[in-house]
Amino acid sequence: MSADPTGLPPLRQGKGPSVRAVPDGDTHERLVCMDCGFIHYENPKIVVGSVVAVGDQVMLCRRAINPRKGFWTLPAGYLELNESAADGAMREAWEEARARIALDALLAVYSIPRISQVQLIFRARLAEPGFSAGPESEEVALFDWDAIPWSDLAFPSVHWALGHFRETRGLETFAPRGNPPGETGGR
Amino acid sequence: MSADPTGLPPLRQGKGPSVRAVPDGDTHERLVCMDCGFIHYENPKIVVGSVVAVGDQVMLCRRAINPRKGFWTLPAGYLELNESAADGAMREAWEEARARIALDALLAVYSIPRISQVQLIFRARLAEPGFSAGPESEEVALFDWDAIPWSDLAFPSVHWALGHFRETRGLETFAPRGNPPGETGGR
Repeated sequence: MSADPTGLPPLRQGKGPSVRAVPDGDTHERLVCMDCGFIHYENPKIVVGSVVAVGDQVMLCRRAINPRKGFWTLPAGYLELNESAADGAMREAWEEARARIALDALLAVYSIPRISQVQLIFRARLAEPGFSAGPESEEVALFDWDAIPWSDLAFPSVHWALGHFRETRGLETFAPRGNPPGETGGR
Repeated sequence: MSADPTGLPPLRQGKGPSVRAVPDGDTHERLVCMDCGFIHYENPKIVVGSVVAVGDQVMLCRRAINPRKGFWTLPAGYLELNESAADGAMREAWEEARARIALDALLAVYSIPRISQVQLIFRARLAEPGFSAGPESEEVALFDWDAIPWSDLAFPSVHWALGHFRETRGLETFAPRGNPPGETGGR
């Protein structure tokens, strides 16, 4: 915890919610804390992101942080509390690529059960000219299709989303794509 | 906590994560527990559900639990860990309506930022004949469009999803609908 403007005492380092038990009225085991009684309901996480087209090129960000530091990804990240999916995707484009984007369509909904993620990926374009690396990116760049660094993409779903972007190019109305057949995002 | 087969002592009733502070390396305030030091990263929740068509009728469930006990809803609920969105929607149809369903298309993606929910609602049909009330439903029934109990629907998004179901009836390929203009799901 940082130097604390609220004047809180230092946190005790207990075990936190670390014991598995089924709370009353529940059907699943949850992690509970034996120090404070807190029940930790873990939930899948929502990732929001976008494939941003600039002319015939797409925008990718080289990750400045782990996991997969140095690899290329889409501007994407966890949806925050009290945020719509669309707002979250636009925020991530700003945070990671200093890009103001306009969303065009929902490109894909991917489920990655191994890591309990649902990813909502939008098709987007720049709403204002310009972009640059945000704090979580080493570099942001535009790529022609043939120049995409396929072997240096950070995650399988980046690969999927680029393929689905290409596949739906020029389509006005389409059903969002899901995981490619047999693909679960596990590596 | 129920009579406990693991032989755990009774949980202490502390305050749990109840103090707001910004953890090191983080940018947002989180709830932390002063008893055990646990940092509670809260995330938006994913609701998965379906509009199940049976001939020209749609399936609704009358809620046996709060919130909105006694009101009609779609078979829907929170996605669980390590579950795909599609699997979650099928599980909820089984749990709430004892219905085995097949998903046909992603009907809608609703964001309800006030309660930090993203809802993924599918268009579905019965994969096997038959349905009945599961433990969280008082009753499950099929409704002709004109017989839908509009003023006794549990949540605004049930209303939206039924409208979007009607609107996309007969469409093979369509973009999933979002919140109706200006609607945030607040009541």
